[in-house]
Amino acid sequence: MPSRLTSHSSDLRPGTTFPAVADGFAFGGDYSPEQWPEEVWREDVRLMREAGVTSVNVGVFSWGCIEVADGVFDFGWLDRVLDLLHENGIGVNLATPTAAPPIWLLRAHPEILLVGPTGVRVSQGGRLGWSPSSAVFRRYALRVVEALALRYGSHPALRLWHVSNELGNENNHCYSDETAVAWQHWLERRFTSIEALNEAWGTAFWGHVYTTFEQVEPPRFAATSQNPGLLLDFERFSSDALLAHYEAEREVLRRVTPQIPITTNFMIQNHPGVADYGRWSHEVDIVANDHYTMGSDPEGFGELAFSADRTRGIAHGEPWLLIEHSTSAVNWQPRNRAKGRGELARNSLAHIARGADGALFFQWRQSSAGSEQYHSSVVPHAGADTKVFREVVELGAVLERIAEVAGSVTEAARVAILFSDDSAAALRSGPKPSVDLNSLDEALAFHRALTRLGIAVDVVPPGTPLDRYDVAIVATVYSLPETAAEQVADWTAAGGTLVVTPFSGLVDEHNRVLTGGYPGALRELLGVRVEEFFPLLEGESVVLSDGSVGFIWSELAQSAGAEITASYTSGALAGEPAVFRNTVGDGAAIYLSTHLDPASKAVFVEDLVRGAGIEPVAAGDPGLERVRRIGANGSWLFAINHGDEPASVAATGIDLVTGDRADGALVVAAGAVAVIREEVSA
Amino acid sequence: MPSRLTSHSSDLRPGTTFPAVADGFAFGGDYSPEQWPEEVWREDVRLMREAGVTSVNVGVFSWGCIEVADGVFDFGWLDRVLDLLHENGIGVNLATPTAAPPIWLLRAHPEILLVGPTGVRVSQGGRLGWSPSSAVFRRYALRVVEALALRYGSHPALRLWHVSNELGNENNHCYSDETAVAWQHWLERRFTSIEALNEAWGTAFWGHVYTTFEQVEPPRFAATSQNPGLLLDFERFSSDALLAHYEAEREVLRRVTPQIPITTNFMIQNHPGVADYGRWSHEVDIVANDHYTMGSDPEGFGELAFSADRTRGIAHGEPWLLIEHSTSAVNWQPRNRAKGRGELARNSLAHIARGADGALFFQWRQSSAGSEQYHSSVVPHAGADTKVFREVVELGAVLERIAEVAGSVTEAARVAILFSDDSAAALRSGPKPSVDLNSLDEALAFHRALTRLGIAVDVVPPGTPLDRYDVAIVATVYSLPETAAEQVADWTAAGGTLVVTPFSGLVDEHNRVLTGGYPGALRELLGVRVEEFFPLLEGESVVLSDGSVGFIWSELAQSAGAEITASYTSGALAGEPAVFRNTVGDGAAIYLSTHLDPASKAVFVEDLVRGAGIEPVAAGDPGLERVRRIGANGSWLFAINHGDEPASVAATGIDLVTGDRADGALVVAAGAVAVIREEVSA
Amino acid sequence: MPSRLTSHSSDLRPGTTFPAVADGFAFGGDYSPEQWPEEVWREDVRLMREAGVTSVNVGVFSWGCIEVADGVFDFGWLDRVLDLLHENGIGVNLATPTAAPPIWLLRAHPEILLVGPTGVRVSQGGRLGWSPSSAVFRRYALRVVEALALRYGSHPALRLWHVSNELGNENNHCYSDETAVAWQHWLERRFTSIEALNEAWGTAFWGHVYTTFEQVEPPRFAATSQNPGLLLDFERFSSDALLAHYEAEREVLRRVTPQIPITTNFMIQNHPGVADYGRWSHEVDIVANDHYTMGSDPEGFGELAFSADRTRGIAHGEPWLLIEHSTSAVNWQPRNRAKGRGELARNSLAHIARGADGALFFQWRQSSAGSEQYHSSVVPHAGADTKVFREVVELGAVLERIAEVAGSVTEAARVAILFSDDSAAALRSGPKPSVDLNSLDEALAFHRALTRLGIAVDVVPPGTPLDRYDVAIVATVYSLPETAAEQVADWTAAGGTLVVTPFSGLVDEHNRVLTGGYPGALRELLGVRVEEFFPLLEGESVVLSDGSVGFIWSELAQSAGAEITASYTSGALAGEPAVFRNTVGDGAAIYLSTHLDPASKAVFVEDLVRGAGIEPVAAGDPGLERVRRIGANGSWLFAINHGDEPASVAATGIDLVTGDRADGALVVAAGAVAVIREEVSA
Repeated sequence: MPSRLTSHSSDLRPGTTFPAVADGFAFGGDYSPEQWPEEVWREDVRLMREAGVTSVNVGVFSWGCIEVADGVFDFGWLDRVLDLLHENGIGVNLATPTAAPPIWLLRAHPEILLVGPTGVRVSQGGRLGWSPSSAVFRRYALRVVEALALRYGSHPALRLWHVSNELGNENNHCYSDETAVAWQHWLERRFTSIEALNEAWGTAFWGHVYTTFEQVEPPRFAATSQNPGLLLDFERFSSDALLAHYEAEREVLRRVTPQIPITTNFMIQNHPGVADYGRWSHEVDIVANDHYTMGSDPEGFGELAFSADRTRGIAHGEPWLLIEHSTSAVNWQPRNRAKGRGELARNSLAHIARGADGALFFQWRQSSAGSEQYHSSVVPHAGADTKVFREVVELGAVLERIAEVAGSVTEAARVAILFSDDSAAALRSGPKPSVDLNSLDEALAFHRALTRLGIAVDVVPPGTPLDRYDVAIVATVYSLPETAAEQVADWTAAGGTLVVTPFSGLVDEHNRVLTGGYPGALRELLGVRVEEFFPLLEGESVVLSDGSVGFIWSELAQSAGAEITASYTSGALAGEPAVFRNTVGDGAAIYLSTHLDPASKAVFVEDLVRGAGIEPVAAGDPGLERVRRIGANGSWLFAINHGDEPASVAATGIDLVTGDRADGALVVAAGAVAVIREEVSA
Repeated sequence: MPSRLTSHSSDLRPGTTFPAVADGFAFGGDYSPEQWPEEVWREDVRLMREAGVTSVNVGVFSWGCIEVADGVFDFGWLDRVLDLLHENGIGVNLATPTAAPPIWLLRAHPEILLVGPTGVRVSQGGRLGWSPSSAVFRRYALRVVEALALRYGSHPALRLWHVSNELGNENNHCYSDETAVAWQHWLERRFTSIEALNEAWGTAFWGHVYTTFEQVEPPRFAATSQNPGLLLDFERFSSDALLAHYEAEREVLRRVTPQIPITTNFMIQNHPGVADYGRWSHEVDIVANDHYTMGSDPEGFGELAFSADRTRGIAHGEPWLLIEHSTSAVNWQPRNRAKGRGELARNSLAHIARGADGALFFQWRQSSAGSEQYHSSVVPHAGADTKVFREVVELGAVLERIAEVAGSVTEAARVAILFSDDSAAALRSGPKPSVDLNSLDEALAFHRALTRLGIAVDVVPPGTPLDRYDVAIVATVYSLPETAAEQVADWTAAGGTLVVTPFSGLVDEHNRVLTGGYPGALRELLGVRVEEFFPLLEGESVVLSDGSVGFIWSELAQSAGAEITASYTSGALAGEPAVFRNTVGDGAAIYLSTHLDPASKAVFVEDLVRGAGIEPVAAGDPGLERVRRIGANGSWLFAINHGDEPASVAATGIDLVTGDRADGALVVAAGAVAVIREEVSA
Repeated sequence: MPSRLTSHSSDLRPGTTFPAVADGFAFGGDYSPEQWPEEVWREDVRLMREAGVTSVNVGVFSWGCIEVADGVFDFGWLDRVLDLLHENGIGVNLATPTAAPPIWLLRAHPEILLVGPTGVRVSQGGRLGWSPSSAVFRRYALRVVEALALRYGSHPALRLWHVSNELGNENNHCYSDETAVAWQHWLERRFTSIEALNEAWGTAFWGHVYTTFEQVEPPRFAATSQNPGLLLDFERFSSDALLAHYEAEREVLRRVTPQIPITTNFMIQNHPGVADYGRWSHEVDIVANDHYTMGSDPEGFGELAFSADRTRGIAHGEPWLLIEHSTSAVNWQPRNRAKGRGELARNSLAHIARGADGALFFQWRQSSAGSEQYHSSVVPHAGADTKVFREVVELGAVLERIAEVAGSVTEAARVAILFSDDSAAALRSGPKPSVDLNSLDEALAFHRALTRLGIAVDVVPPGTPLDRYDVAIVATVYSLPETAAEQVADWTAAGGTLVVTPFSGLVDEHNRVLTGGYPGALRELLGVRVEEFFPLLEGESVVLSDGSVGFIWSELAQSAGAEITASYTSGALAGEPAVFRNTVGDGAAIYLSTHLDPASKAVFVEDLVRGAGIEPVAAGDPGLERVRRIGANGSWLFAINHGDEPASVAATGIDLVTGDRADGALVVAAGAVAVIREEVSA
């Protein structure tokens, strides 16, 4: 029986379900037949069948090919494409084409284009150049969405609505006069009175007191930095403006095609928070994500694992869809590294291990023209007789062999890393003590250290119930809501082990520093009072009394009850305490006042999990990526070998990839992935 | 009897005096009570008294809190603040709040905002965003200044007018159409005829001949570099436009409150010449300066000493006011290094040793909101129970113990370094042979080398009488007025030892190269004729016959009478002369045609002062900073130990800091400062 | 009998000749008397005679000095200058002064100024700020050109028209609305139908379908990269717009002064293709080029040799004019290195060896004012008693001694490197797999390796007949026209040895990738099919089975008939083939799938020329630059020693520089140049 997906979308009754996007795993990619003559379509479909493709995203940038002039629609080619796909058993995630408005629309209404902070309006020729606050854009966008929904709502190939594309990627901020009015209305709804806004942002600083909402401009280019509270709210407004656009499209689609699930592709990755995906996750029927590895990172798989765990966290732990990734190189990095042999499968299966119920590539056939002509694809310029296409076919076969895994969930972890888009926005809003501080690096470093040990980790937004966790890590969560801080405190007192790193819990929701000693939101819980930051210079490091090495940052702090477990032995703070451990009820709160370097962090993490009695997902060689998915009828252990040598994992069961049977241990070849149907569930 | 300050302001009769800003040393900081509820004010005043605060700068950015709407003034809070301060014996330097116009004014009159070289007008949200050429801004600014003067002119707390803030920091250049008209008028006053302008700037180059002044635009963005003469005059015009604004405010204040001295805070530091402070120094009643150390400079105290000496030079050798510096980290550097233990006192006392009669911090209480929320302060976010506040209290106590020093002057040096803002402006106006040339590096390097030996140095503008000096150094003084060059020549002939380094004395007042061989203004004096510059590449160096090493620069030069004391032995100029010494009357002029590296410069400087028979301020360990202040009734030796080891200085007297008595020698602890009331004056 | 120059200009009947610019070699420089009082002119002419100057470029930026107000001409000074020069036997290349419009014109018509991609219009104060699509500019420019031609067309000093200056240097792109209309017309002429444009550019990508030409904007700033086909055509349009301006000036000059040859100064150097000089070369009566060495390149003479060979290639192998180079440092590099002793002569004579029949310097007398006051010149700021002037005088004497060489041509090479401006434009139009790819580096690296061995190389545009060559190198010729590819194939089959490096022959004329396996245009010829690019990261390298080392780039490729001569032994492609050799008819095609590092390239090139039986121009020490010019009555061997040690070359004849006779071998002193009139022609 095909599984169903349960929507969390706030516009539906709780528990509403839809048919799953595909039987088993969704597999395929973005398909742009409009770029090719129809004879190529037949070859495409033949190759899709060869590769076991179940799902394609169609129409993502096709507005100009569908609405060929104002109100004039040409659906002929799209009719034929959908029919052809359906005839071949391939499901369609149909995109609303609003990511790229047609040229005729931009010529008639250039006012829909974004304006930058210095007043420059972007020109045609790119994508996502539109302002989400443009009323004219909204009107045209909803008209084409409705036309599309009416035309294809009952087409048998249709499985999912793919609203627009990467909302916020290029249009995350707009500074136009029309946007300014929307921004002022947003502020008025948020603060009700201008006095409340002045108080929240502390506008007495520089005497920037507002007397009406109409006086509040977007943070356009000024001679100096803008107010941090204003900057943060503008980030939130900008995310909300994009979300409102999504919701407007959703409203049309829901009305016309209530039976079809709706999503939009997120960009949960190393660019923190172009949108507050935590909020967005409550408005989609299934979380869908785009992910691209950075070729310059020799351990890009570590970032992939972190991003996939973040995506699962945002998806409330439920299955999600990897709706875009690449078969090999992208075209927007300085030097676009290609994937080595087997890396395609390791990447796709790592996402699946961490909760994805599908793996789609951008894109099916490599464009010969256009800005992305050197972006890899399933069918390269060189055709199907290529490493890339063969590896896609092999992956398709693996996905069929492991189809039973679809619909299961990634095993719950005992370690949580807290991650917040809103905090990331606060951190980048206004000058900070060091350019080396950001929301990702420390969290990712802890995730890498844990993953290397085979420890499962959930990455969750602050406020997520922590009951199921033994260890929680708060790493550069600059802004921590008061309720989340209280929850963390309660959980610690109930026996949790909390780890906090610098620059966490410093500000309130308006980006104002909590005074009285850092970190204001966690000071009492930690039993620590930080009085002054001592950022380290580039290349500078400090040595601790336990032999650890810190970099990036140090702090002058005192215990306010916590035990001092290590002190600085070098630098300006030699002799001062560096690491603290506070016993809180049945639990403990550990505070690190510096960033430990990777080797020291590995030692710290090993002690931490040992102390908490947390075991790996499965015993195995270090570095072997180990993840378990659990379903109603069993469990599957994914073991991914990113190294050049065979690696061993404790397992008993059948490796569905090779058909080999493991009896206590399995050797995974260099570069290979095993998916073991476990006989004894973990 | 409290000392008085003697004004050099050109709008007063010579010799006019005012009461000193404080009895003893002025001590305190910028105080922004408008950012805090009134209950905090009481704690502030209590802590001020604890720290021995005498003086606070109030109202710097408070326009929007005072003039809450067009012509509507709310003085209530400021009345209460001034009364409270006065009741507690704390004097007020009251700022005119014109550095940050209110939002309502910017909304009503956006035309007062600066326009950049590409035509972008800055938006609200920053500070100092206004154009000094804006008539509308001037009108509103003078109205609020007058209102403030009328209100508080006779308030007993008022000690000093602090006009606006860091004029030119963000608004050093404006390219608006209104500015263009002011610029054209300025040029017409300067040149009288357009023919004179064409001749001065050499506009025949590229055929850019002007036929009316109305044709001369500001140096807006063009496809190539603008004319160097135009660029230099635009720097001068921009400084004059800011000065004219200052003078307009002063006129109002002088009229309403003739009994109150007036100043504005300069920014004499590593950013050369946003304004020609040499000129400005004749328009203030006391020179006041802001200074912030660069955390990335491991010997930032050397730059501090140089800047303090520059400030004293601009203040005609008389006491000046350190009106802003920081207790610890700032927030605008990439990595904002905090000050280590004792560094606060070493920094403040180094300024005082070099002539400051006060040390005020930006700011009193660390803001919780606004762009400067991470700038250090006297009362940090963590409160008064902090290293920083305790060190401020200790410093306050020291200042009381050395209060007798106030009103004295720094001992006259026998070495002068010439430094010119106008020359710095000329140097940055137009393409030069090497990006490594600038007005500061060589002068600072000589200052460091001399300071390390304990030699006192004055840093003075060209044109300053040199009679009192034995050695004068002209280091990258690109533009040297003819009269100054003549004065240097006369002084040399009378027995002085002159040192000149490359790229000095090259151009006339219009930034035109003096032809016939470099350096045109000093060629005859030096007995050297430079025919061609040989800039060195990055990382390149040359070795001289005396073992010295040069970098940055070299030159093909011949003696025209001078003795050749060293030659190049490597590089393209191997075999050519490098260092020259010309006997001139009773003196000598030395020309270095390369930049000596630090070690070579140390040797050169040691020989130089030995040759001139110049002794250290006091014998002592190298690196121990030694400065003497001399008053009517005695002298005080400051000895500042920036190192990690105790250091010794020759001294006889009482160390007012510790109360210890020195009898021939004093050991200054690592990181400590001694202020010795000398028994035998030097 | 003075030689004559044969024009290739398409507006003349084939074979039209003009008198040569000078008897023997043209020698002199840009002369700007308008910057100096008339008494200086007399000294100038005296020094010109001393130096043997034959030719000066006059009036290049003098529009504002000639047309002093709208329609008001002041020719007096120019009359006197031309008369003075003529009286002294100095010929004049008279510039049309259109490179720098007068200030009065820019004030009256600011709309002639360029607009950048974000809509910023450049301001006055620079040069070449005008848009070639401005009708107003065109009208004013042609009026002054006609006035000049009428005034001086029959002046006896006039030898050559120098149209404007470095067209495209600062005004290579304009994005104004007026330009947009010109662009749309250009596209309409190119494509006839909008459907053809859509097909060519692949506008279905992102749905950017155009329905009228009026919809196509210039590639102004957009949120993402613009379409690569559009970008490439905009480069072509921009070059054509400049060429059209040149042609419009030429039309006026040809009409008024049909007896005077016409040219404009190209900038064939390291900035690839601001204009398509291949096309331009058919519109000038003699190719004239500007060349400036980069001081940061320790082997700048290698780049000079390459650029000179490119210029000769563009000049159809015939004599050309080095119309600008420098005596020493320029003023636009970060650190402007001066030329060492003898470098001036080595540089000038290297150009002459490679086909220049003249060597002119920018500029005669160093400006005291203006943006170029620190650009070197023939008469430096220091005057004539300088290294530079003496070296110019020496060079003038050498040119007289070798005057017999003028009119001869550089000996035909047996090795050709293909270089295409249009391909360079395609390569920079749109995102590519690696930022390390460019059109110059590989071609220059091969040229250096060959030159070091003393092998003569021609650098020719694709499509040049290759019959005379034994070896041809296609290095990063990204876009190779189909006819050129066919010609290369035919030539290879006829016995040629072809070397192809990566990223050559990838796209069609519309910048669309040729599918089916790279390199589409050469795949069959090479017997290789590349399926995927593996760009290397910064600092990464790969080792090949023959010991070679590759960097920048690698590829996954298979033989489709070619022999594999080396394989990768490291990196992601270990075990895969790296170098291929395909036997084609009587010839062979070699494909390198990586960039060989310099040492490996030296070995490769040595094998290559040995295999092809190609000998050096003359046997000699490695690194000694060797070039032969051949005339009707003999041959001359240039031997240029860039090193610090004497070097030997096989030669028999008289060294015209020293008068020494060589009998089988000549030792060229360190830094010296020999020009040997050969007794036995090579």
